Amino acid sequence: MQGIFITLEGPDGAGKTTVVNELSQLLMNDINREVVTTREPGGIPIAEQIRQVILDPKNIEMDERTEALLYAAARRQHLVQKVLPSLKEGKLVLCDRFIDSSIAYQGVGREIGKAAVQNINDFAIEGHYPDLTIYLDVPSEVGLERINRGRKESELDRLDNESLDFHKKVRSAYLELVKEHSERIVLVDTEDNIEKVVKNCYDLIKDKYPSIFK
Amino acid sequence: MQGIFITLEGPDGAGKTTVVNELSQLLMNDINREVVTTREPGGIPIAEQIRQVILDPKNIEMDERTEALLYAAARRQHLVQKVLPSLKEGKLVLCDRFIDSSIAYQGVGREIGKAAVQNINDFAIEGHYPDLTIYLDVPSEVGLERINRGRKESELDRLDNESLDFHKKVRSAYLELVKEHSERIVLVDTEDNIEKVVKNCYDLIKDKYPSIFK
Repeated sequence: MQGIFITLEGPDGAGKTTVVNELSQLLMNDINREVVTTREPGGIPIAEQIRQVILDPKNIEMDERTEALLYAAARRQHLVQKVLPSLKEGKLVLCDRFIDSSIAYQGVGREIGKAAVQNINDFAIEGHYPDLTIYLDVPSEVGLERINRGRKESELDRLDNESLDFHKKVRSAYLELVKEHSERIVLVDTEDNIEKVVKNCYDLIKDKYPSIFK
Repeated sequence: MQGIFITLEGPDGAGKTTVVNELSQLLMNDINREVVTTREPGGIPIAEQIRQVILDPKNIEMDERTEALLYAAARRQHLVQKVLPSLKEGKLVLCDRFIDSSIAYQGVGREIGKAAVQNINDFAIEGHYPDLTIYLDVPSEVGLERINRGRKESELDRLDNESLDFHKKVRSAYLELVKEHSERIVLVDTEDNIEKVVKNCYDLIKDKYPSIFK
């Protein structure tokens, strides 16, 4: 029995984490195989160590290409140690972010270039693309407002034009990826309420893999 | 004034570290520009952190491609933070190992493939190849004997066939690189005594860059 590899993607503020969790709960009850919900670095100690280097607030001098290589390294280790073994056991793997995040964030957002970032990620994933990628779309202003909701006024002030520009670049990169890989990536709009968004994702999976549902 | 970027390469046991140090001393006295002697990770905190992940003895599950990406990430950061700024100031940079080590060790020794490892390193170095690479050659049996000289008998026992095979693969990869990049890489034999080896390296640099010598 072949496993099923599904990734969820989207700009910050798309509600990805909530959707992944709720979707995962529904699938666990309704399908006839084990569901593995994960995200990079996914509790793999080597990938966690790499993540710590990326996130260390002291590392302000980190070059964009160093960062992209570190993300690819963490992705590789998580893929090899967690995703592939789970797929081999026939499980459904639901992964919060994967290669498309690097293309959108590092390739376009950080302006390294899509092809170059694709290249090092091809080295990392060796053709192990997801079977299905759900892209949660959100307009940049809405996404940023969601991220900052509940923050203090003084913090909101730090939301300068750069972060809106960055967010827009990331979103447009995702929209391009949806067009380029329409066989794999499906767009789900997130301006609906969360229950509706989760339902849409659920239906997508049910349409594509009816036989795994009880 | 354009800087000069020189790398030293070779299998373990070629005497690289000794040669780099002695050569660097001679050059400091004899040339009319500053000499920067370095090696990856070269005291760059981000690259040191990456190096710690690579070398952590707990990380026995590290995949070869994860390792190759981490080396490329550390190389990138060291290049951007140390090598390029030094070259910009017109200095002569003498670097112990660079891209050719990854091709030989990860590409051939670990059997990832030369082209694939070249690819991710091209991403990391963006065309900043050394002006001159000195490859210190040593037959595998001699190299291994040098590494293990002075170790206890009980430690010598761990030298199994795999390590000799690995060493041979690495050396043959280097010999291939010398042929493929004869415009950049020059072979120096290390079976002579160390003074002679250092003298040969010194003369190579003097022949190529006579105008920088006092």
